[in-house]
Amino acid sequence: MAGTSNSPRRVAVIGASGYGGLQTLRLLQDHPEFQVSFLGGERSAGKRWSDMCPFLPLAENLLVQNPEPKEIAAAADFAVLSLPNGLASGLVPELLDSGVKVVDLSADYRFPSLAQWATTYSAEAKECNRQDQKICSEAVYGLVEWAMESLPLARLVGAPGCFPTASLLALMPLLQQGLIEGDGIVIDAKTGTSGGGRAPKENLLFAEAGEAVAPYGVVGHRHTAEIELLASRAAGRTIQLQFTPHLIPMVRGLLATVYGRLRDPGLTAEDLTTLFQVTYKNHPCVEILPVGIYPSTKWVRNTNKALISVAVDKRTSQVIVMCVIDNMIKGQAGQAIQCLNVMSGLAPEAGLPMLPFYP
Amino acid sequence: MAGTSNSPRRVAVIGASGYGGLQTLRLLQDHPEFQVSFLGGERSAGKRWSDMCPFLPLAENLLVQNPEPKEIAAAADFAVLSLPNGLASGLVPELLDSGVKVVDLSADYRFPSLAQWATTYSAEAKECNRQDQKICSEAVYGLVEWAMESLPLARLVGAPGCFPTASLLALMPLLQQGLIEGDGIVIDAKTGTSGGGRAPKENLLFAEAGEAVAPYGVVGHRHTAEIELLASRAAGRTIQLQFTPHLIPMVRGLLATVYGRLRDPGLTAEDLTTLFQVTYKNHPCVEILPVGIYPSTKWVRNTNKALISVAVDKRTSQVIVMCVIDNMIKGQAGQAIQCLNVMSGLAPEAGLPMLPFYP
Amino acid sequence: MAGTSNSPRRVAVIGASGYGGLQTLRLLQDHPEFQVSFLGGERSAGKRWSDMCPFLPLAENLLVQNPEPKEIAAAADFAVLSLPNGLASGLVPELLDSGVKVVDLSADYRFPSLAQWATTYSAEAKECNRQDQKICSEAVYGLVEWAMESLPLARLVGAPGCFPTASLLALMPLLQQGLIEGDGIVIDAKTGTSGGGRAPKENLLFAEAGEAVAPYGVVGHRHTAEIELLASRAAGRTIQLQFTPHLIPMVRGLLATVYGRLRDPGLTAEDLTTLFQVTYKNHPCVEILPVGIYPSTKWVRNTNKALISVAVDKRTSQVIVMCVIDNMIKGQAGQAIQCLNVMSGLAPEAGLPMLPFYP
Amino acid sequence: MAGTSNSPRRVAVIGASGYGGLQTLRLLQDHPEFQVSFLGGERSAGKRWSDMCPFLPLAENLLVQNPEPKEIAAAADFAVLSLPNGLASGLVPELLDSGVKVVDLSADYRFPSLAQWATTYSAEAKECNRQDQKICSEAVYGLVEWAMESLPLARLVGAPGCFPTASLLALMPLLQQGLIEGDGIVIDAKTGTSGGGRAPKENLLFAEAGEAVAPYGVVGHRHTAEIELLASRAAGRTIQLQFTPHLIPMVRGLLATVYGRLRDPGLTAEDLTTLFQVTYKNHPCVEILPVGIYPSTKWVRNTNKALISVAVDKRTSQVIVMCVIDNMIKGQAGQAIQCLNVMSGLAPEAGLPMLPFYP
Repeated sequence: MAGTSNSPRRVAVIGASGYGGLQTLRLLQDHPEFQVSFLGGERSAGKRWSDMCPFLPLAENLLVQNPEPKEIAAAADFAVLSLPNGLASGLVPELLDSGVKVVDLSADYRFPSLAQWATTYSAEAKECNRQDQKICSEAVYGLVEWAMESLPLARLVGAPGCFPTASLLALMPLLQQGLIEGDGIVIDAKTGTSGGGRAPKENLLFAEAGEAVAPYGVVGHRHTAEIELLASRAAGRTIQLQFTPHLIPMVRGLLATVYGRLRDPGLTAEDLTTLFQVTYKNHPCVEILPVGIYPSTKWVRNTNKALISVAVDKRTSQVIVMCVIDNMIKGQAGQAIQCLNVMSGLAPEAGLPMLPFYP
Repeated sequence: MAGTSNSPRRVAVIGASGYGGLQTLRLLQDHPEFQVSFLGGERSAGKRWSDMCPFLPLAENLLVQNPEPKEIAAAADFAVLSLPNGLASGLVPELLDSGVKVVDLSADYRFPSLAQWATTYSAEAKECNRQDQKICSEAVYGLVEWAMESLPLARLVGAPGCFPTASLLALMPLLQQGLIEGDGIVIDAKTGTSGGGRAPKENLLFAEAGEAVAPYGVVGHRHTAEIELLASRAAGRTIQLQFTPHLIPMVRGLLATVYGRLRDPGLTAEDLTTLFQVTYKNHPCVEILPVGIYPSTKWVRNTNKALISVAVDKRTSQVIVMCVIDNMIKGQAGQAIQCLNVMSGLAPEAGLPMLPFYP
Repeated sequence: MAGTSNSPRRVAVIGASGYGGLQTLRLLQDHPEFQVSFLGGERSAGKRWSDMCPFLPLAENLLVQNPEPKEIAAAADFAVLSLPNGLASGLVPELLDSGVKVVDLSADYRFPSLAQWATTYSAEAKECNRQDQKICSEAVYGLVEWAMESLPLARLVGAPGCFPTASLLALMPLLQQGLIEGDGIVIDAKTGTSGGGRAPKENLLFAEAGEAVAPYGVVGHRHTAEIELLASRAAGRTIQLQFTPHLIPMVRGLLATVYGRLRDPGLTAEDLTTLFQVTYKNHPCVEILPVGIYPSTKWVRNTNKALISVAVDKRTSQVIVMCVIDNMIKGQAGQAIQCLNVMSGLAPEAGLPMLPFYP
Repeated sequence: MAGTSNSPRRVAVIGASGYGGLQTLRLLQDHPEFQVSFLGGERSAGKRWSDMCPFLPLAENLLVQNPEPKEIAAAADFAVLSLPNGLASGLVPELLDSGVKVVDLSADYRFPSLAQWATTYSAEAKECNRQDQKICSEAVYGLVEWAMESLPLARLVGAPGCFPTASLLALMPLLQQGLIEGDGIVIDAKTGTSGGGRAPKENLLFAEAGEAVAPYGVVGHRHTAEIELLASRAAGRTIQLQFTPHLIPMVRGLLATVYGRLRDPGLTAEDLTTLFQVTYKNHPCVEILPVGIYPSTKWVRNTNKALISVAVDKRTSQVIVMCVIDNMIKGQAGQAIQCLNVMSGLAPEAGLPMLPFYP
């Protein structure tokens, strides 16, 4: 039976010293069914893990290696790629050919159409001349709760961005049931600074981001395309919406506050809460809060959970869905492992942290 | 000429040890035309200021006194009241009768209709049996940029809440010109924790509010009524909108991200930026940023400025107006002094801090 | 064999809604050998846990009950008490008589001499007329790494304060080996605000503690007595030292920077690092960093680990020992469970989190 | 009389876009006697200020220029240099020759001995082959309160580092009066992250520095030499001490907690507080707190003040002096302007912010 094999599944983590790689390694340390068997990285190739990261000892004190597909294939059954946009596509074809299943944390395989990727990530598209449309078509979008049928068979998964994860978990039930208007949707999102990655940038300095909140990427943030793609698929027609991210002075955590106009003004928060509960009934990583309880990002810190609360304003016929996640776990590395779980026949939440330490 | 009188105007500050009072006192220390002549407070009556607040010496080391209207009138030309909702209305009638002009930081005189106040602040209304409808009718709503005609003659000003200040500065030009639809307006606001006051509450503890972002008062926050009142006045018809505040892990600062649907889809961000610039041309405390520059609350920290940026999404015909203020200055005590300035014939920004210390 | 009993050990947690109780409950959820069987609390008696804490579901959704010793004894083998100083001593005698083993998080049983407790906690001593000198004498001070002989037999453990834990782990090896002078020891400690508890206090508000660092309890903080007691025991003579805590704008984490003067100026950081490594060799919850690597509290956040680094300044013959812990885990609830582990014959680290999520 | 000249003094600010330059520009905007007449910078040469810094409009929207000494001399009477260590010494000789008086924020002119500079800043010394020993000898160390005699005549001032400023204000009175032992002095300092500058570095990212406290530069931080130099001068003999800085998750603020052993164990905190008050009596930028009141960095945020509190532990005969400053104002740019003031015959505090905005 799947999930009870004798030998643990071997996983390569490529791009190990960035936040995405670091989280993936950390989460795999607690996982009973996976084992890190290969560490890949270009800048840090040749270094021993314990020298790079003295505070996070791995059971196996591996050497970081150049990410050669053949070496990876010799050492691992799965690979989690945590690389800048555009670079994964240089490794994936060969990895798939060698029989390695891949979960990619970048945006490279989030769009079935290579052309749409190239439009959305135009700077990256210029630098790498991708020709892998066929592989793009094959890739599964790894929003686990909405991909339970395709994930078990997937060879390649494009793990969703952090903003799309929280936004879509909030929007999909409403769109799929046709409960909100297609236009006028507003997603006002707030994220901690770790979402910007570990490479030093001025705007992510504590002195700049501390004691401050500011919008960025207003009109046209690249996650908009990803959200609209899935939203349109759920609605069965083209959805265009407003997505505005904000940088918050905290390390981790992401809140999407989603606004939509109800088609049926008679629907109550209780009705919609029930709908959400039914929709996510068999999905242990999503939990719906009682009406009137609004989530804090602190309630999911360091977990793979999404907490959702639904409110309705009868006066305006607006529905407000609030969804919190840890941007680095359910919004990134945790969801990647959730994908690995389902790809391996394990329970989606297997080996993942589900309870926060509070406060 | 007004503004050049020989003797400084005398100001009483009532409720001196809360954040509103503290800010008012601090700002008045730098003001060339006003002088603090009376400190009022119930709990701290009898204490000397320097013992309560060793780090903020006042030029005059006053004794905190019980806020008796006669004593106040004997000592001051103006009074700034920084008291919990419902308490100002116990002092104001007598103060006005004694010839003291009043700026009230609470919500007591923000509504011309006492009934609407009692509906919105129902708990407070039960505790204090107000009968001052006539005074409510007289009070001026002190959103300075939109009250330049009435303020010079005012005896009583209800200073706006922090959220209404940022939200209305962003909304008023669009509504007054009829440029956006009346429905579907969304105000997603983010505030530092000082907005919750200095009285200890669990949710405002560092351990609770740190490393966390969360919505609160979803559907029905009391500032909604205040925003809708002014918005409706500007639009010339009833406006109902969605207002959702969020608590951000920072001490000071407030951002309102305001979404509306354009009536004319041909309008550009440049068009609207021009409109905003013209609207606020003679208002030195409001500044419009160039298209594509989005404001940070850090840019207005410790100043009486509002910074506004306007964006338009052509695809969705939505306009996004972002407005940042310091919640305790332009959002509270600074605006109160701006009111005093205009009431005294001074320039609105007289004596107020206009440049941030960055970072 | 110890540690493999069939039925899980039953634990009562008294004072469940404060941070100490909350952490204890959270940690026990992940523990394979313990089960929460009783929730005690006065203010919240009668409430169901899930209503108090919707974000931290317990496997058993217990009702909070009045902490009656008989009820506790009927339901539990162990009790962890997380109560204000002075209150535990009202429950402990009866609990011990009923056969319940107790770990107390307060200061009530940290001193073998009741008189010393009454001197150090004089305000509390006045309010509760304690007569339990005999029980004080029996209690074991639960600094696990230095109590491995007495803990297995203990009926009652006084769990150390957060500051003493970090300070003593750093000091004990030096004092026991007589390597530093007895006078001139300085402990400069820094803690996150959660150490101040969950009851709202002005100085712990985000608006007050954010963007600020300040000393408190300078000369005479009550943890001084506790540190000196153990330090003297290790040195074999009376030690008096300087302990100064500082409040840091972070939720969790504690750093003790400990300064002492070497008796033998020839000793190097390498020598002392080796000494520390040998001392803590069999103690998995304490780890010694290589010379030149200085610990961050972030490296132990949400874990039961202490990280220690040792530096020596040859010019001044001073040794600097830096020790970081999570103030709520190794500094409080985690150490309590570490005590339960040793009292139960389990490995000290059984069921405790040992790896941080970074960042 | 000096200080009342008709035309404002013209100041060049070199290195305008870093934090030091930015603060200097901001402070000069409020100064009635100085005027920014030249902006120098290499990377940003050719840009207009308002494009670089839209949130901090300067009265004169200057163009940033290459810092050519002749151009500077043509435009300015004074220059404030805010450049990386080693670079100022390339400009200073020529500036002095052209009659421009200079305050340098770097370490280049803090040591009268070039050799000592080269030992302390060895990496920089290798890159720039300095030959300006004579100029080093001439430079005045700009710790204003201790340089009131030499500053009025100075052509060149080396402005102190942030840590030395707080540490020395606390230590000098004790050493000068011979009240503490020369050995065993411990300075445990805590600083906000802006002290690390605006150039992006991994350890200064919000995600790294947030929710964390850590020591750095343990044993041998370069400010040690600077502190010891002045301390020795005050004591009249060589002082070697322990200085350990810590990075705190806040933007601005610096606390030095200084420990020393009293020679006369009979001295009380009251005695020493009186000594400090007398010492700093005529120095408006230093204020001594009453015994038992301990300062918070928040009390001096955005001001040029130092707040000092003195405590004594009779048991250990230790004195603890706590000194807080704003690291970017009294610890850097504000002190530079304080130097300019004294060099120009103005009051030391002229035009400088002296009161915090709280909270």
